[in-house]
Amino acid sequence: MVVVMAPDATDEDIARVVERVESVGGEAFVSKGLTRTIIGLVGDIDSFHHLNLRTLAGVADVHRISDPYKLVSRQHHHERSTVWVRGVPIGPDTFTFMAGPCAVESPEQTLEAAQMAKAAGATILRGGAFKPRTSPYAFPGLGVRGLEILADVRAATGLPIVTEVVDARDVAVVAEHADMLQIGTRNAQNFGLLQAVGNAGKPVLLKRGFSSTIEEWLMAAEYVAQRGNLDIVLCERGIRTFEPSTRNTLDISAVPVVQATSHLPIIVDPSHAAGRKELVVPLSRASIGVGADGIIVDVHPHPEDALCDGPQALLGSELRELAGAVRTMPGLLGRVDASERARILA
Amino acid sequence: MVVVMAPDATDEDIARVVERVESVGGEAFVSKGLTRTIIGLVGDIDSFHHLNLRTLAGVADVHRISDPYKLVSRQHHHERSTVWVRGVPIGPDTFTFMAGPCAVESPEQTLEAAQMAKAAGATILRGGAFKPRTSPYAFPGLGVRGLEILADVRAATGLPIVTEVVDARDVAVVAEHADMLQIGTRNAQNFGLLQAVGNAGKPVLLKRGFSSTIEEWLMAAEYVAQRGNLDIVLCERGIRTFEPSTRNTLDISAVPVVQATSHLPIIVDPSHAAGRKELVVPLSRASIGVGADGIIVDVHPHPEDALCDGPQALLGSELRELAGAVRTMPGLLGRVDASERARILA
Amino acid sequence: MVVVMAPDATDEDIARVVERVESVGGEAFVSKGLTRTIIGLVGDIDSFHHLNLRTLAGVADVHRISDPYKLVSRQHHHERSTVWVRGVPIGPDTFTFMAGPCAVESPEQTLEAAQMAKAAGATILRGGAFKPRTSPYAFPGLGVRGLEILADVRAATGLPIVTEVVDARDVAVVAEHADMLQIGTRNAQNFGLLQAVGNAGKPVLLKRGFSSTIEEWLMAAEYVAQRGNLDIVLCERGIRTFEPSTRNTLDISAVPVVQATSHLPIIVDPSHAAGRKELVVPLSRASIGVGADGIIVDVHPHPEDALCDGPQALLGSELRELAGAVRTMPGLLGRVDASERARILA
Amino acid sequence: MVVVMAPDATDEDIARVVERVESVGGEAFVSKGLTRTIIGLVGDIDSFHHLNLRTLAGVADVHRISDPYKLVSRQHHHERSTVWVRGVPIGPDTFTFMAGPCAVESPEQTLEAAQMAKAAGATILRGGAFKPRTSPYAFPGLGVRGLEILADVRAATGLPIVTEVVDARDVAVVAEHADMLQIGTRNAQNFGLLQAVGNAGKPVLLKRGFSSTIEEWLMAAEYVAQRGNLDIVLCERGIRTFEPSTRNTLDISAVPVVQATSHLPIIVDPSHAAGRKELVVPLSRASIGVGADGIIVDVHPHPEDALCDGPQALLGSELRELAGAVRTMPGLLGRVDASERARILA
Repeated sequence: MVVVMAPDATDEDIARVVERVESVGGEAFVSKGLTRTIIGLVGDIDSFHHLNLRTLAGVADVHRISDPYKLVSRQHHHERSTVWVRGVPIGPDTFTFMAGPCAVESPEQTLEAAQMAKAAGATILRGGAFKPRTSPYAFPGLGVRGLEILADVRAATGLPIVTEVVDARDVAVVAEHADMLQIGTRNAQNFGLLQAVGNAGKPVLLKRGFSSTIEEWLMAAEYVAQRGNLDIVLCERGIRTFEPSTRNTLDISAVPVVQATSHLPIIVDPSHAAGRKELVVPLSRASIGVGADGIIVDVHPHPEDALCDGPQALLGSELRELAGAVRTMPGLLGRVDASERARILA
Repeated sequence: MVVVMAPDATDEDIARVVERVESVGGEAFVSKGLTRTIIGLVGDIDSFHHLNLRTLAGVADVHRISDPYKLVSRQHHHERSTVWVRGVPIGPDTFTFMAGPCAVESPEQTLEAAQMAKAAGATILRGGAFKPRTSPYAFPGLGVRGLEILADVRAATGLPIVTEVVDARDVAVVAEHADMLQIGTRNAQNFGLLQAVGNAGKPVLLKRGFSSTIEEWLMAAEYVAQRGNLDIVLCERGIRTFEPSTRNTLDISAVPVVQATSHLPIIVDPSHAAGRKELVVPLSRASIGVGADGIIVDVHPHPEDALCDGPQALLGSELRELAGAVRTMPGLLGRVDASERARILA
Repeated sequence: MVVVMAPDATDEDIARVVERVESVGGEAFVSKGLTRTIIGLVGDIDSFHHLNLRTLAGVADVHRISDPYKLVSRQHHHERSTVWVRGVPIGPDTFTFMAGPCAVESPEQTLEAAQMAKAAGATILRGGAFKPRTSPYAFPGLGVRGLEILADVRAATGLPIVTEVVDARDVAVVAEHADMLQIGTRNAQNFGLLQAVGNAGKPVLLKRGFSSTIEEWLMAAEYVAQRGNLDIVLCERGIRTFEPSTRNTLDISAVPVVQATSHLPIIVDPSHAAGRKELVVPLSRASIGVGADGIIVDVHPHPEDALCDGPQALLGSELRELAGAVRTMPGLLGRVDASERARILA
Repeated sequence: MVVVMAPDATDEDIARVVERVESVGGEAFVSKGLTRTIIGLVGDIDSFHHLNLRTLAGVADVHRISDPYKLVSRQHHHERSTVWVRGVPIGPDTFTFMAGPCAVESPEQTLEAAQMAKAAGATILRGGAFKPRTSPYAFPGLGVRGLEILADVRAATGLPIVTEVVDARDVAVVAEHADMLQIGTRNAQNFGLLQAVGNAGKPVLLKRGFSSTIEEWLMAAEYVAQRGNLDIVLCERGIRTFEPSTRNTLDISAVPVVQATSHLPIIVDPSHAAGRKELVVPLSRASIGVGADGIIVDVHPHPEDALCDGPQALLGSELRELAGAVRTMPGLLGRVDASERARILA
């Protein structure tokens, strides 16, 4: 950490900072400038946080310099990780295509969507049984019944399942049915839920909060990791900005930024970022180009009857176009398809 | 709702929209313009949502026109509401001053802070026992022990208590000790928690999500109200913007916007918005000026030893300055002090 | 400045930074931590900028610590300044009320608006002759004819005039007619225009760019100041955020932040921030409460016929309410009305 | 346009809106709902703007429905356009790679950078002679001397030149030397400058304002187009958001959104969006993937000596990697290299 003193800080003010730092075993290096003094702190950062240096007289600012996350950082875990979901890898060597309906509505709709997804090359099925909705009057999902439908569809298609959990009290039942637990964007700072999925013994798909900085997002991952679960896949899904033409602004740069900072895999959700199906194919190609480890896309056999997010669901020609991109582009960038890799390893 | 057709929409496209609207008992008024057709929908809006009109061929856009919240809307409840917290009113006729430490750290610190708050004119004590923290390595609060301390301090000072609840599983124990349950900014869309506090039978202090629009915030209130609890006080506490000089940007305009739209009382938290104690007094005066129904402010007897948010806690001369503003300004704007009103009514 | 080295930086990397800093006469203080080394730089900051330290091997980050502005900073000019506009003061001891129509449309409309403004207590008349408009199809203002109308209305009412200049080529003619030159929000980084008004010898009203940080805004003021003109009044007018219920989000905290950082006066424009006339009175009272040095408000005798921003113009009862607040509130906060102060000094 | 009446609007209020619309030759279609009435307007939209309907009693809101731009809209110009810069095409069939130094510093540095750019496959040279700088103390560019250097380097390398113009008074001299005039992000709403380049008879590279919505950006293009110049290339370069890890957030979705809305070509500037050179290659690949019509990238022979934006300039291995992506990826997506197309047509 670096403490920046105010221009009018006195020698006593500086001495008090040094003394406080040394009181917890740290070292303080004082650099006196013409108008300001800065003090570099060396030692255990966590102990410095409790010093409340910012409240001391003469202190203008305190800059943190090292990353606040540890377990998910790439600093001490240089190799990028691969997370396996019931035999399907997500990581630096592969490109994993996940698809499915936003919400599980019925056995028929879910099976049909899963078959569409599989035919297009998807190797993991997404589908929501518990839906967080901005309005208490909107469709909240089928709950446990939805989980059972997903399990049946997995049996029929062989596709592993990722589904969202929205309440710590539901983690056990969701973990019983699903292969991967999704934390949605609205729960990015629901720390009790993060800890509960960290304890559940299943891989986690951690969506970025639509207003989380990348650092806050990695801190959320740290909450999961701290419970002993490092099988975390991050998912960029757009952030809130002033631009109204898309539902959120896909922060495509987050992919290489995260890959440089954390060893965790990162995929992209172009459907929820854009909220408009005609943007899903170009944004998926952008995601492949930027080097994402996969994508997760909404498909629905009958978008006009969808109970949730119909306008962003792909079908027909667009899905075929996406399938083509997923089949051809990742190879050019040195990746194999996730199903291919699973086959090789089997 | 208004459906805007694309310039190249056909007569069949228009007919399909009309048909779908009529199929659920609605009426569709078609206005053909030179380049576009718009269709005004009249009837039960909730039924229209399930029509997925946006997915139909030829539809360019769908505009919602009426507010999506009902119970918290001022439309059918013109009079602005007053919420009572153990005998202390929060509403349009009064100005309620709440203060206390960000976190409960010990009986001594909490009592001392409560006495400071009371001496400055506060009529409700704030204090956190369960703290949501961005880092899993930060102080998480004392939990149930903290609630007990708060209850003891209430007994000693007579001040009613507002404290945060961060997990639906904790609602019962918090409701047992506290007089008002606070939902924090990070849980603004934790719908399970909102429903749980809606069931708890205690007044609720609902902070705005730092990235919630006012409409989303009122929808969160609707979740609480839908469970039969209309004793909700809204709290503006700053939103996330690009400006780095304050922790968040206090959206002072939210106060009159909410007052025009909802019957619920609204207060301001200048401490968490600014994150810097030297801004708390001017922002409190701005809150009184704009017509807020109260403020909630961090005070701490020894900010340099605070385990949470020390840099924004008031003490000494600043607190005296704030006390003066709270004593004199609201009266000029036609409000009485909350303790005064409680006295009159007693 | 502080240079933060990457965890894997070598001793050679560190030596290279030190050497480069010393090559321009600076001193480098090295603090070696467990995982990172930080280097504090002491000396002439401007010379450090040209070193491109961020491009050197092993450098992770470079933090600037001191403010980049000088002439407008309060650091070396502790006393807050007062700017005089044809005998009317704007500064820390007074509260200055400016009002007038958004656009000058005709002699009659301008005179009528000026009389309304004066009757409500305004001491400076605002009115736009050159209007920056997002659409090339919108009313661009009357240009030089508008300036002449403003000059006539000044003669009739005695009110000094502030009007916007949007093009460096117009500065001379505007300066010939107006008493104060306004730089609008869209020209906050039009550096040629800033320099031109800096040369014009008239006080400047510098609106904040709707996406400028406070630091960038003060840098814009520095551009004016560098030309020898320190008669600058800053005007907070709202920033762009995700909240749609107001045209912009008034950053009320900017007032005390600027007052702590810069010696320049700062006023608030609630009309353009909100874009809705029913918010103008509460936001004006908030501005008085927060300690602003004045406000600037749109008034129009017939808003329904206004060629620009009719929905935010005050008239009738709202203007009377505002007049009351401006007459009574500033005195409570230790300020005199600007016209009063001008009278005392005369 | 659609006028939404307030719930308590009277029949007289509705009649007044209808009357006003009809007074300018429009038609008003009234749809009375249970709680609200909406009125669809048909006719000349520009005439409606002057009606100030939002100021009328009983009017709650007015929604614009059609796009406010005309000349740059794809609605009446379905085919996407190609802009030619001294024989080099930018448009839907090609992928155009522009590169060069951020600032022209000397003949040697500019020539060396141009040769690097050309060797990597660039077909247009970028380089700044007039630099808009946030600080008045930063390097402002070489001005006319810089333009002469660029012209010399064009003679030596054959690369057409794009360079920024920051002041309407400089347009003539820049147009004399350059092949394409760039409007930078800070001048996105400098309407006088936009009109001046619209008159200059040279292609224009119009960067998005870092806080402009896509609609505002297209309105800026409309200002240029209205002067008779439709040779406009749009350039997405990142927008201002809350995320601090990149200088701006590249809005990659803007590419397909613009391509659906406007016939103008659109390219991406990954260097200025990211501000960090290690992100330039992945973001360039994302830009190719999303379907951009080209990219513009900073290169510098000696970034550590750069007078402007050194940290984002590519060289060596990264530039070779970029060259590889530009050579191979666009072909897969059905585009030819711009130089190839120029050759074919020659």
